[in-house]
Amino acid sequence: MTSTDTTRDLRIDSARLYASLDALGRIGAYTDERTGLVGVCRPSLTDADADGRRLVMGWMRDAGLAITVDAIGNVYGRRAGRDDALPAVMCGSHVDSVPTAGRFDGCLGVLGGLEVVRTLDDAGLVTRRPLVVAFFTEEEGARFGTDMLGSAVATGRIALAEAHALCDAAGVSVGDELRRTGFLGDAPVDAIRPHAYVELHVEQGPVLARKGLRLGVVTGVQGISWQELQLQGRAAHAGTTPISYRADAGLVASLVNVRMRALCDSGDYGHLRATMGVIQPHPGAVNVIPGRVRATVDLRNPEEDALARAEADLHAAVDELAAAHGVSVAWKRMARTPPVPFDASVQAVIADVATRLLLSHEPIIAGAGHDAQEWARVAKTAMIFVPGEFDGISHNPRELSTEAQCADGANTLLHTLLALADEP
Amino acid sequence: MTSTDTTRDLRIDSARLYASLDALGRIGAYTDERTGLVGVCRPSLTDADADGRRLVMGWMRDAGLAITVDAIGNVYGRRAGRDDALPAVMCGSHVDSVPTAGRFDGCLGVLGGLEVVRTLDDAGLVTRRPLVVAFFTEEEGARFGTDMLGSAVATGRIALAEAHALCDAAGVSVGDELRRTGFLGDAPVDAIRPHAYVELHVEQGPVLARKGLRLGVVTGVQGISWQELQLQGRAAHAGTTPISYRADAGLVASLVNVRMRALCDSGDYGHLRATMGVIQPHPGAVNVIPGRVRATVDLRNPEEDALARAEADLHAAVDELAAAHGVSVAWKRMARTPPVPFDASVQAVIADVATRLLLSHEPIIAGAGHDAQEWARVAKTAMIFVPGEFDGISHNPRELSTEAQCADGANTLLHTLLALADEP
Repeated sequence: MTSTDTTRDLRIDSARLYASLDALGRIGAYTDERTGLVGVCRPSLTDADADGRRLVMGWMRDAGLAITVDAIGNVYGRRAGRDDALPAVMCGSHVDSVPTAGRFDGCLGVLGGLEVVRTLDDAGLVTRRPLVVAFFTEEEGARFGTDMLGSAVATGRIALAEAHALCDAAGVSVGDELRRTGFLGDAPVDAIRPHAYVELHVEQGPVLARKGLRLGVVTGVQGISWQELQLQGRAAHAGTTPISYRADAGLVASLVNVRMRALCDSGDYGHLRATMGVIQPHPGAVNVIPGRVRATVDLRNPEEDALARAEADLHAAVDELAAAHGVSVAWKRMARTPPVPFDASVQAVIADVATRLLLSHEPIIAGAGHDAQEWARVAKTAMIFVPGEFDGISHNPRELSTEAQCADGANTLLHTLLALADEP
Repeated sequence: MTSTDTTRDLRIDSARLYASLDALGRIGAYTDERTGLVGVCRPSLTDADADGRRLVMGWMRDAGLAITVDAIGNVYGRRAGRDDALPAVMCGSHVDSVPTAGRFDGCLGVLGGLEVVRTLDDAGLVTRRPLVVAFFTEEEGARFGTDMLGSAVATGRIALAEAHALCDAAGVSVGDELRRTGFLGDAPVDAIRPHAYVELHVEQGPVLARKGLRLGVVTGVQGISWQELQLQGRAAHAGTTPISYRADAGLVASLVNVRMRALCDSGDYGHLRATMGVIQPHPGAVNVIPGRVRATVDLRNPEEDALARAEADLHAAVDELAAAHGVSVAWKRMARTPPVPFDASVQAVIADVATRLLLSHEPIIAGAGHDAQEWARVAKTAMIFVPGEFDGISHNPRELSTEAQCADGANTLLHTLLALADEP
């Protein structure tokens, strides 16, 4: 028999998947005082995170997976293949959360993978290649300040010792917390080099919902440029200072913000997204012209060339705008990551599966960071997005993908893994 | 003899005036920790203000002035005239300060008037009309929240009971503090209706210094419009939210700020000054599109019609900008005062005196509020401005007008008062 023949009509158990998401979501749950909504607070390597990890590992064992924990606390559950010496096909994500999270971010990718294994177990199916369901340490960066930490260490971008030395706001290190929680594993961090990596995730944005799509085939992760802009003008009395004598740092910040949107709207930089999230004028009084402003610039683009051009052109524009108003400029680089394009062949498999399952889908770019962007360094990789309610709000107790939406994603993950695991 | 013959060469004693400014400036003095500069903290009806008031009243008595204190704590020092039944010519200002002040704002007008009296005493001159040197309670509004309080009560804009009931941040009322400090006088607040009122003041702006002028003849006080602007958009993830799906309240605030400057630059609104001093985006994070912004709009104009047109046109522009970006708008009126034009004949006297004293001068608009704008309601009124160093910085320990600059102002005040006091 070939797996294609027997598996074509295979479907995951959506109620079982949703019940698992619900059970994991109760760990670290809290009630938001203002809204009464129940959220999740499970930052990496806290007691809550350790409880969540142990719950998932128990389910992995129940499903017959062989568990490995590596030296950065990444957890791998392995299901043997018929040709068990071949590199595995891996799926996964993370179970840590930001302090004000919902129950889907990360967890859907891990529990979706677990549901695939449960489904194969129920059907008595063994894939050619082994399968691995994994979750990675500190994806959020919410506690120790570096996101995708576990997968970055596993794939060689960050050295283990450096990762262990990172401290949280209270001065507690990753290494100490791995030891304390029992997740300082003995497997080397680079033990796993999968044949392919597929990550199912909630979109965390409005695109799929607004387009009425059931699935997104993720083409890659945007490059991110974070910069801090310090504008220094001259604080002065709003009543006594004529317009021509002003050096209004707040006005220059406003001109920069408007220019950023114009760069996006110009179409000259492809799919550029630009955001000024922080604008802090000093002294910040109704009758004082701002003498100084701190502002932040968040630029994102799926193309490195376009991102770099947007950065350079914005710098030149800011110099010009500031000089015209007698304001000086200082930039500080906060973060910069290049775009990560995902593997075209894996995207094609996902798209074929979605078409076969009659799930409307389109290519989509990932706006936020994901473990997949690290694994893309060492394996062919892509992601599957499902839509979320409320414009895909995330990092918020209102985060919600329905049982049907989660099932669409998990069924697509199931058949994508089956196809990849059949590859020679 | 006529006063014109004997007084033409009369000059004030600049060293005595400056020494008085220095002595008064020591009351409530503090050292700014960051800069090491010595500033003045003498908010209205504090112990420091009461000490300052008593120092000035002692000097008034020494100069033979008859002192009256009214029910809002305004202090009037009267020098008899030859025709003592005629309404007096009054000069004055205030001795209260903002918490981080210099020693010139207000004090120059009061001590300049005292120096005029001392000079007349020394010369043995008696004017036809009586002269009054006055200082008024809570000009700054820094403690009880309503500026020009004492002169507003004296001239009928604010009722005495209402003024007495105003409380500071600690809940202490004006009435209680007047009683506690001994400045709840028994004179009725409307006892003084002068023939003319002249106020000498530091410019508190850069115009005179930048133009190299020694004196400004103040044509009036700008109208002031303070509004709070609440913009409500939609907070969203900077990475996952395409530009076309955004409702960026921060961008709309920026567009409004840029539009405000364009209104000023258009020339369509005369001498319009517009300032956005407060810009507070929420939540204020680098990777979150601002969902809500609180901003303030400060509009000033010497012409009521132009100010009202600027307000209306800005409202229409904000509606349009906000609607184009899916953002809603709420305005809140914070303050609104109409422009106060000063008396042309008093301005002419001041300009004539300045010309005769060989002091370069030009007409200038007052950008900040002054007691004179209240007295203009009941008497012909104008003001004399002298330049300040450091672009006329004020409400700051760096506030500085030199001895020569103060003397220019006081000599102009002297001869202006002599001319007005001679009027039939």
